[in-house]
Amino acid sequence: MVLLRMVQIKNKQQLIENGKTELVRRARALALDSIEHALNAVDPKKIVKAKLLLNESLLQIKEHSFDLAEFHNVFVVGGGKAGGPMAEALEEVLGSRITEGIVNIPYGSASKTSIIMLHEASHPLPDESGVAGTRLMLELAEKARSDDLVICLISGGGSSLMPCPKEGISLQNKQELTSALLKSGATINEVNSVRKHLSGFKGGWLAKKAYPATVLSLILSDVVGDPLDVIASGPTVPDSTTYADARKVLEEYGLWDKAPYSIRKVLCDGEEGMIDETPKAQDKAFQQVYNIIVGNNRTATLAMCQYLKSQGLNTALLTSTLEGEAKCIGPVLSSVANEILVSGNPASKPAAIIAGGETTVKVTGKGLGGRNQELALSAALRLKKSDVSAVVVACVNTDGVDGPTDAAGAIIDQYTCLRAEKLGLKPERFLADNNSYNFFSKLADLVFTGQTGTNVNDISLIIVL
Amino acid sequence: MVLLRMVQIKNKQQLIENGKTELVRRARALALDSIEHALNAVDPKKIVKAKLLLNESLLQIKEHSFDLAEFHNVFVVGGGKAGGPMAEALEEVLGSRITEGIVNIPYGSASKTSIIMLHEASHPLPDESGVAGTRLMLELAEKARSDDLVICLISGGGSSLMPCPKEGISLQNKQELTSALLKSGATINEVNSVRKHLSGFKGGWLAKKAYPATVLSLILSDVVGDPLDVIASGPTVPDSTTYADARKVLEEYGLWDKAPYSIRKVLCDGEEGMIDETPKAQDKAFQQVYNIIVGNNRTATLAMCQYLKSQGLNTALLTSTLEGEAKCIGPVLSSVANEILVSGNPASKPAAIIAGGETTVKVTGKGLGGRNQELALSAALRLKKSDVSAVVVACVNTDGVDGPTDAAGAIIDQYTCLRAEKLGLKPERFLADNNSYNFFSKLADLVFTGQTGTNVNDISLIIVL
Repeated sequence: MVLLRMVQIKNKQQLIENGKTELVRRARALALDSIEHALNAVDPKKIVKAKLLLNESLLQIKEHSFDLAEFHNVFVVGGGKAGGPMAEALEEVLGSRITEGIVNIPYGSASKTSIIMLHEASHPLPDESGVAGTRLMLELAEKARSDDLVICLISGGGSSLMPCPKEGISLQNKQELTSALLKSGATINEVNSVRKHLSGFKGGWLAKKAYPATVLSLILSDVVGDPLDVIASGPTVPDSTTYADARKVLEEYGLWDKAPYSIRKVLCDGEEGMIDETPKAQDKAFQQVYNIIVGNNRTATLAMCQYLKSQGLNTALLTSTLEGEAKCIGPVLSSVANEILVSGNPASKPAAIIAGGETTVKVTGKGLGGRNQELALSAALRLKKSDVSAVVVACVNTDGVDGPTDAAGAIIDQYTCLRAEKLGLKPERFLADNNSYNFFSKLADLVFTGQTGTNVNDISLIIVL
Repeated sequence: MVLLRMVQIKNKQQLIENGKTELVRRARALALDSIEHALNAVDPKKIVKAKLLLNESLLQIKEHSFDLAEFHNVFVVGGGKAGGPMAEALEEVLGSRITEGIVNIPYGSASKTSIIMLHEASHPLPDESGVAGTRLMLELAEKARSDDLVICLISGGGSSLMPCPKEGISLQNKQELTSALLKSGATINEVNSVRKHLSGFKGGWLAKKAYPATVLSLILSDVVGDPLDVIASGPTVPDSTTYADARKVLEEYGLWDKAPYSIRKVLCDGEEGMIDETPKAQDKAFQQVYNIIVGNNRTATLAMCQYLKSQGLNTALLTSTLEGEAKCIGPVLSSVANEILVSGNPASKPAAIIAGGETTVKVTGKGLGGRNQELALSAALRLKKSDVSAVVVACVNTDGVDGPTDAAGAIIDQYTCLRAEKLGLKPERFLADNNSYNFFSKLADLVFTGQTGTNVNDISLIIVL
């Protein structure tokens, strides 16, 4: 029995007391409690332990089972911000059945393991230590034979923590090109097609190198909609793009001529068939690869639903893939809250509607804020006033850090704008200046959790009592 | 018994056949049938007849009842695009109990009445005929005594169809200023504060002039959220703004100096108390005013829900006040559809989720389109592909005219983008160019109803089978 660290909202009492009426305070308490439930449901250690069942020699996960008695070695590789707790959990489940392993984790992680080596590296900018760890993983993978099992632990930050530039390309060159691409307006799929063709690990290469071993990837998804090839750039997932695609992306965004010779050479060599393409879906290596999402936004939001149902609320998960400009989405949340208030649709009071995902903010102002805080602020502006009900909207980033701020998000109710105006604050101005942090700071309605050690994007919650 | 005109989708068969699989065709048919149900539920004539119950001399509407035996005269006034059918309905219910009436309707309306005079006027630009009709209404209202009932019929377009510039102000001057204000970026509330202070009819004046008669306003709402003071500029609703507010609005948007002398004089005279303020909430005239919404977006969307439930679908009305940039909202609809597909939330298949309201489009491209078509196109781009399910999204304007096009909206499914690409069309390009009409025209997925004769804004519908 292991004591799991519980994530808590540090200023919960204050946030509850900010409610004007008893009913609003109750709605705020329910919202904050349910956020804690959601965050703890995606605790990486807890989640891996909960998903993996070891029954005698039979390791079960979801609909798959692996008879460990049939495997000679169990190797563990992987990396990400949750790498440490995931490795701890795996050791607690499999113990000495693990032969050896190496997992890249961020500097300063507190995790402790006894068999799997936890190798510290840099995030969000990769470093040579990350490269060294990743090379060790590839060595393990190449050592694995047909009667071995390679377990891969993947979580958010995995792309930076497991860098592996192809021979001849320096980490710095690869990284500078990736940064330039990200700034150029290229889509994430376009950036990834380049990344994968410059890497010896991403884009399915880990799986290819582990062949003919069986590969089991346990993935804690930090990407909306769980696209397997995007999370940590898919080291165990087939790549559908080509060297020619990668070259075209660089050309389209005017970066081909600026790219270092080493990078252009790799892409040209690849196009001419002198070096191997990234592994494709039909590659037999993938026949024995199991990519399994152990946790995602839905895990957190469904836990939130379950908790709120247990508290007697009519609860629905609207979506776990909400995307879009935060200040456009906020009024949508309000429109649902207002509908509950006025007509009892889509749920009658007491009601909770939950929407997970990840919004964006196109910064045009000079203020300080985060997408969740801006979402909450834009929702506050459209909430119907009601003195007989309580309407609360809370928006948080599950990793505890919303934008470049120390808050996870913010909580509002139908009196938020009124309170602000009494303090002489104009909510519209703060929104126009992307200054949601300073707005909520003055109202003491920022939600503080500290870094949670997990990341399954954002959660928005409407409660109407 | 009166035969009501049923609104029909003219190209329904084609729209159904555009579905790739039997299941998609079934989902399309359900979507189109339910749109017809929604449109017919807000048929102005049907709705007025359904809401008004005459039992002996007792006229009942919602929770209110009026004993006609206690009234000497029943006068009818009002206007709007649905004025004709609303007047017809009122005559069919009250018959000869109506003393006399005048209702302004658009040129070319086909309605026929025997007691109430239907007075044709111009929409959306007001004309002198509209002014003449409105003056007749005010004469009727002023004639009404404490034992008279004034029934006012209000619907979309009422502002333009019932113009009544204050003495000394020409219709042209008032109209030019209003147009300039609308273009200036002023909010609708700001524009209305000016409008109401230049009118002898809007902003509560009709109710004030009808005092001490009892006033019953029957309102078919064409404004999201049904703000009574906004619909037709609230002729029977208290105004909360002042002459000073109206002047400040003109100053803030740089229009004060450009405003004609007659307008500046009215606002200055008003500020100095030389002419009366618009009637305020505490005015005793409003003690016997009953403003009743007989139909709104929710009427249509709930009828849609009811129909889809009767067809065995798990159905929910998400909101009737959806607002925001169409291309931001489309992906939200998709995210809900995708969640149903993947996790059975917020409803399990077969499911329908309905969202009413009115989105907007900030036009930056040079194409042809409407907000509902753009909404559908942006939704199509984010829909998950599934070959075992059917996912359909349909978006229509209930008045049958979406943007400057001849279509009411469009219908999409999970194969829409695939079909487009096979035809060599790039959906993203059409969206970026605000060219949704030409996109859907090539796919033959525009929904055509013709003018429906009613307007309760827009309806979006998701169906997942």
